Amino acid sequence: MKLYDLDVSGNCYKVRLFAALAGINLELEPVDVAAGEHKRSPLIDLNPWGQVPVLTDDDVVLRDSQAILVYLARQYGGNQWWPDGAAQQGEVMQWLSTAANEIHSGPNAARLIDKFGASLNKERALEVSTQALSLIEQHLGKHKWLALGRPTIADCAVYPYIAVGWEGGVTLEQYPAIEAWVERIKALPGYISMPGID
Amino acid sequence: MKLYDLDVSGNCYKVRLFAALAGINLELEPVDVAAGEHKRSPLIDLNPWGQVPVLTDDDVVLRDSQAILVYLARQYGGNQWWPDGAAQQGEVMQWLSTAANEIHSGPNAARLIDKFGASLNKERALEVSTQALSLIEQHLGKHKWLALGRPTIADCAVYPYIAVGWEGGVTLEQYPAIEAWVERIKALPGYISMPGID
Repeated sequence: MKLYDLDVSGNCYKVRLFAALAGINLELEPVDVAAGEHKRSPLIDLNPWGQVPVLTDDDVVLRDSQAILVYLARQYGGNQWWPDGAAQQGEVMQWLSTAANEIHSGPNAARLIDKFGASLNKERALEVSTQALSLIEQHLGKHKWLALGRPTIADCAVYPYIAVGWEGGVTLEQYPAIEAWVERIKALPGYISMPGID
Repeated sequence: MKLYDLDVSGNCYKVRLFAALAGINLELEPVDVAAGEHKRSPLIDLNPWGQVPVLTDDDVVLRDSQAILVYLARQYGGNQWWPDGAAQQGEVMQWLSTAANEIHSGPNAARLIDKFGASLNKERALEVSTQALSLIEQHLGKHKWLALGRPTIADCAVYPYIAVGWEGGVTLEQYPAIEAWVERIKALPGYISMPGID
């Protein structure tokens, strides 16, 4: 099983982190994104969207970090990370959407601008970040984990761009419940870090 | 089971459409979004994010249209709409992320600007729309449905804002495979429309 990977990508780190926590063995294949390797064959044939991560596992080929988390958890991770029941899947899924939407357009976009020079709207990225972090703070003030009262792929999907948000000017000083959740994640057995965290 | 609903919301329509296609009975509770009802009690207590749709089903309360689709399909819709297997869930999930990310920031944002006066960046919304629609066109040139070779919640999640995209200046003239897919969806048994389609 191979993960086409970029060390500084929070989307790739979502998958590396989950695999480490769940004890799933991944072969990492570094992609030279700076050289545009993800936009050319053979990678563009695996993922026409021209993005990392991409996962291949025998004949399974998946783009999108949330989709890869669902696949890995369902196939190898057990119900504790991605449950079987409808209400439980719905509860986790809310946060996978938050990762794909607000976390992507908020702290991820802010970091892309500051760290990689992306031509996106910084003011908008900070506005989305503040809205999302305020709501996540409110949620984590009442819950130890994002969903189901335990660590799930929801946490793996939302955590990375919050943890490296300071690289885009999105800091956690005003969000003590998020800071405490970050520490809880760092204390999980098997936890691994990424560049920009700590 | 109650859906807190707005007729002109594509996110609400995702849920109404899927329920109609799968024969699931929803009680619709219209929300006066213009009057800010979604930002006040009792709705803000059900969904602190202050958005519609919200689904309540006994003690299950869910925000986010993708999460509601997963819940309804898993609980009431059967495996044809949201499958049980890991690879299949991953395949559908890719498109639920596309709905939450590119479709949200692309055709949905463009329509919010033109139809509802949202202060978002139109140029950026059109750029994201063009990128996403080109890739979806490429995919649908080779596949009848977004995932699994059959209609799934992936189609229900991606379709609405593409179908009403013209309200934000995102038209389908250059995307014949998407247009054909739109017609296939409209021909599904039980299909219902929303304001702005046709």
